Parts: sequence; structure tokens; C-alpha cells
Amino acid sequence: MSTPLRLRYRLRVGAGENAERRAAHLAREQTLEAPEGVVPPEIEARALGRVEGVAPRADGAFEVTIAYPVEATGRELPQLLNLLWGNVSLQAGVRVEAVEWPAELLAAFRGPAFGVDGLRRLCGVERRPLTATALKPLGLSARELARRAAECALGGIDLVKDDHGLADQSWAPFRERVLLVHDQVERANRVGGGSTLYAPNLTGPVDRIGERVELLAELGVRAALVAPALIGVDLMRSLAESSGVALIAHPAFAGSLVGAEQGLAPELLFGDLWRLAGADAVIFPNAGGRFPWTYDDCRAIERRLAAPLGELDPAFLMLGGGIDAAGLAAWVPRYGPDTIWLVSGSLYLRGDLRRAAAEMAAVVAATPARFGSPA
Amino acid sequence: MSTPLRLRYRLRVGAGENAERRAAHLAREQTLEAPEGVVPPEIEARALGRVEGVAPRADGAFEVTIAYPVEATGRELPQLLNLLWGNVSLQAGVRVEAVEWPAELLAAFRGPAFGVDGLRRLCGVERRPLTATALKPLGLSARELARRAAECALGGIDLVKDDHGLADQSWAPFRERVLLVHDQVERANRVGGGSTLYAPNLTGPVDRIGERVELLAELGVRAALVAPALIGVDLMRSLAESSGVALIAHPAFAGSLVGAEQGLAPELLFGDLWRLAGADAVIFPNAGGRFPWTYDDCRAIERRLAAPLGELDPAFLMLGGGIDAAGLAAWVPRYGPDTIWLVSGSLYLRGDLRRAAAEMAAVVAATPARFGSPA
Repeated sequence: MSTPLRLRYRLRVGAGENAERRAAHLAREQTLEAPEGVVPPEIEARALGRVEGVAPRADGAFEVTIAYPVEATGRELPQLLNLLWGNVSLQAGVRVEAVEWPAELLAAFRGPAFGVDGLRRLCGVERRPLTATALKPLGLSARELARRAAECALGGIDLVKDDHGLADQSWAPFRERVLLVHDQVERANRVGGGSTLYAPNLTGPVDRIGERVELLAELGVRAALVAPALIGVDLMRSLAESSGVALIAHPAFAGSLVGAEQGLAPELLFGDLWRLAGADAVIFPNAGGRFPWTYDDCRAIERRLAAPLGELDPAFLMLGGGIDAAGLAAWVPRYGPDTIWLVSGSLYLRGDLRRAAAEMAAVVAATPARFGSPA
Repeated sequence: MSTPLRLRYRLRVGAGENAERRAAHLAREQTLEAPEGVVPPEIEARALGRVEGVAPRADGAFEVTIAYPVEATGRELPQLLNLLWGNVSLQAGVRVEAVEWPAELLAAFRGPAFGVDGLRRLCGVERRPLTATALKPLGLSARELARRAAECALGGIDLVKDDHGLADQSWAPFRERVLLVHDQVERANRVGGGSTLYAPNLTGPVDRIGERVELLAELGVRAALVAPALIGVDLMRSLAESSGVALIAHPAFAGSLVGAEQGLAPELLFGDLWRLAGADAVIFPNAGGRFPWTYDDCRAIERRLAAPLGELDPAFLMLGGGIDAAGLAAWVPRYGPDTIWLVSGSLYLRGDLRRAAAEMAAVVAATPARFGSPA
């Protein structure tokens, strides 16, 4: 068989369960889904996952390695997701820790359409980390959101995105909001000489996304926010291939997939998979904010967004989730330069939004990121 | 404010955490996502979730009730999912136990296009539970899958579906498989006088689903399998509104959303939400099979698929996940009649597939379901 798709699992077995047997069931569940003895040997040889190793770990669980034939994925993203985490998502004590991606499979995906270099070009920033803020809160009018966007742009923030909860509510409907915010950001760019990028929230009903993408194209909006777990990760892939805008992926609704005992490793989902599915930047809550993730989690995702992955471009890690602007000078050196600092609430708390934005931009510009590429 | 969208949570707080404060943060996280003090009072009044109750539970956790304004959902499914389980999916110790659905919100969704009555009409079965089997395994040729489908149809199985791992692999590509299986099932229906329904697996790349739906329409295929967590639940909603086929929803990849300590209650996800999103039948692993779910879990889902939910039609619960045909006579009376019994592996183990299918069909036809509608 050609190079297989190799998955490394952490498997926790119950009392009286046999790890080798659980591993064999796992390989079967994710492929043939049929009991032993009913599948002709030549079909098992071509399609069944093959258990390559079952070894005890120090934590009492087992490390299981299973090799799957690439053809079982059909080289399509939904079936790849199914192979990785389909039926097994309904079982207990299984975590996918890492994937070895065969080149043959990666070649079926284009990954980020812009990637780090492309997004840097859109923002006009060569080397340093980028700055970003979210337009919020839900409930404001489109005019007021646009005013805030202009202030942030005049303050020199690189990227202004819709909050991910801004959909098509009557308070600030999608079309009106995008028209007004885009207009104000463009005006601020002309006045202030900046090149702030606006990313509206494209997360919405699948049968309305086409017309929304057309509006972006018409206006010349070059980036958008999507929440892959809300619209489907394969729709993000499709948008990356065809929308013409850089995609910033938001983790809303995806947190349940990355449990400590059951799920996918965060760096596998938010690193490998979302990059493969076309995210140019992936938002994740930084350690020390409103969410219980650690610095190690964040660094692991950063590494997977940057590491070699076939011919796919690297993507930015966008760190948010309640970062205080006052803490940025300490945080920036702890990550590499291909990082976007997403600060919102603490800017608003400062009162003068333009000034708060300018100070934040200055801090990030003046603070050296961790040397070289993240590793 | 009009009738709100009311969510009942189970909240587990850490040592030193205050439950009232966590609840207030939760309401804020899912709406304004901005710290106290920066949002004008009139915006908080219109958009912020309102904590209605925080009460200790016997298990040491807290029952929290939060009322959200319907307008915050924008009456769109992705934003509704975001409100229910967006950012909070990245936190710890939160479980959404139940939702009170305001009529105003339900009116924005059509739900099942066929529902229980429509799917019964397609199968020509008035009152009893239905029987189903999955074509498998992955790796077989389309011809062999079609031969098996014919055997099951001749045996009198009501519904024959693709296994959810059958995508567009070269072993049995989508188009070839659908053509051959449909042809064989139709032929078996003519020969045997039955009306077996074939449901191919439509789960696939979002930009190829349109052409696949067209193929179904061209052939007169009236049902399809989709895995909402693999293609996006909103795509299922769109297919329910426009595809013209009855939709059977598979839970692959969705298991992580229904954790015992963190997530959505299974009956909320697989009951309310998937029904609202257009599933005519929802597959869930029966108790006692290969998966660790209980009879109570299954019954709770059954109830939510049948309970009044605005003007939405009820949907079938399809029980699978390793049911042994030999156990059916004992299981059938434990559920209501609007149940579909999905048995595959144990039929194949019997060798003579047509005979095994006929015996299964006879058992289900002869065994009274729990009296009346599930309650």
C-alpha cells in the first residue's frame, strides 16, 4: 500500500477491557464498520485500518497507532473528518493526538489561499506581528460599529473584524454593516495613510453566503471571518478555493472537539486541520484570558500552523479571548512574528478608542517577537 | 421584550469561583462579549442575555437559567448555534440541558420536509416501526453493494442506506454506486412487490452536493443520508428546504458535542436541533450496542423528536450502532412506533442476507411497539 494516513491515539480503557482489542475495534469502527468474519480478506486488505502499535503510557492510558489507507478518505474533507473522528466521537476515552499526513493526501487540498505572506501583503506589514480588534458589541447599530472601525483604523490597527456574533440581526444587518464599515475603514485609510483590513463575519446560512461573498467582491473587501464549526469546515475549504478573500477562522462551537480525555488534540484541529481547510489565520484564546487554555496549547497550535505540511502555506495564529492591552508587551515576545494580537474589550475600556488603538499598535510594533520562525 | 430564548444550563464551578458571577459571565460571553462598563445601558437592555436563576443542584453543580433575546439569533441557524454553544464550547464545566423555544424563533425554520408521516408514505408503511440496513463495508465494489441492496429489498427491509463512510472512494464512486444500487432496489421492488427506499450517502464536499442532489432527482431517489456534523448542520437545513429528498441524519463527528460534563444534552442536539434543522430521521446508537449510551439517553432523544415543537413535524429515531437482529423482539416494545431499527452487521453474519432480512422484517412487523406515541 502507498504511504498510509497514520493516526496516533491516546486510548484509555475501562476496567476489564483489553487495549489491543479496543485498538482493533477502533480501526474497524473507522473503516469497515462490520464485525470480523463477514468481510472478504481482499476487502479487509484494501480498506481496514491497520493497528501498528499499542503501548502503555506513563499516565495509565495506551498509545495506539493505526495506519489507514488514503483511499478510504476519498480525498474529500468530510470523509477525511469522518475517518479521523466520525463514529469514534460517540465512544469514550479516545483522543487523536497527532496525524502523519501522506503527501498524496495533502496534494488534494489547497490550504490557505493567502497564507502568512498573502495576509501580510493585504495589511502592508512585512515582518512584525499584526494587530487586530473585533467590532462589538452585538446590539449596536451599523453606523456606530462603522464609527468604531474608523477609530481603530486611524489608530493604526492592522485588521478590524466583525465580532463573530454579528450575523444578520436587525440591529446591524449584514449588508448595511459591511457597506458602512468598509466605507469608514477605506476613508480612514485614505485620511491616515494606513492600510487597515476589514474582515466582516461571513458566518451565516449556507444558501446566503454566495450573495454575501459577491458583495465583498463588489466592494473590494479582501478578508472575512468564518466559524468553521458553525458553517461546516468543508464550506471554509470551498470559500478558500473560490471566494477571493483571506479567511480568519473563529473557534466558536469547536471547543467540544478538543477535550483533554476525548477528542482531537487542539493543535491537530486548529493547527493541521483548519490550515488544510484553508484558514489564513486561526483565532484561539490566549493563555491567561477568559478561557482555560494554556500557553503550551497555544504554542502547539502556533507550531502546527507554521510547520511544513506538504505544499500548503503557513497560517497566522490570532490570539484573543480577553487579552489585556496592558499585557501585550509581555506576551508578544513569547510567540513568533507570525502572530496576530486580537484585543477588543480592554481597548473599549480605555474610553478614547483611537488613542487606545494607537498605543496598542505602537507596543506591538516596538516589541520584538520571539526570534525567527516559531519552532 | 417578546418571549425570550430560554436556556437551562448545568454549571460546575471551580473552587473559589462564584456561581452567580460565572452565570453573569456566561450570559455576557454568549452575547455582548464585552466587559461590564463599556456597553451603553440601552444596548445591554436589548442584547445581553439575562440571568433568571442560579440554584444549587443535588450533584454539587448549579442550575442556571438565562433568557436571550430572540433577535440575537438573527433567526439564522449558524448564529443560533453560536448563541447556544459558541464561545462557551471553549470553556469548562458548562452543559446546556434544555431550551425553551419561542414560537417566533421556531417559525423561522421549516424542520423536517417529510417528517414521520412523509417518510412512512415513501416506505408505504402506516403504523409499525420501520426496518433499515446499511450497505457496507467500505472497500466493496458498487456492483457488490448493489447486489446486497437487492437482497435486503427482496427480504422486505423498508429502508436501505449507504454506510456513512461510503463517500466517493474509487472502490465504489458516488455516481456509479447510486446508479447501480438504485437500479437494483427498483428491480427488487418490481419483482418482490415491495417499496424499499434507498438512501445514498450525500455527505461530501459542499461544492459537489448540488450535482449529487441533481442525480438523485433525475433517478427519482427520494431519500439520502447526511452527517450534519461533517457537512455543517445548516447545510442539512438547506437540503431539507430544497433537495426534495427525505434526510436521515447520522451522528458521526457529533459525539463530542454531547459530553456528560461539558456540551449539549444529547436530546437537545439530536432531538430539538437536528429536527429543527430538517432531519426526517435521526440515527443514534441504541443502548447495549458498541457505544456507551444508555436507554434513557435514547428515550430522551425519541421524546424530543416527537414532542410538540412549534409547527414542526416530528421525526423518526433510527436506532443502530450494533443492534443484534436476535435482540430485536426484546427491543422493539421498549420504544414507540415512530422508530426505525437499523441492523447491519448481524444480518451479514447470518450468511443468507435475503433470509436474514426477511426474518428481521417479520420480527419487527410482529412485535408491538410501546403503545401509542412515545411519551
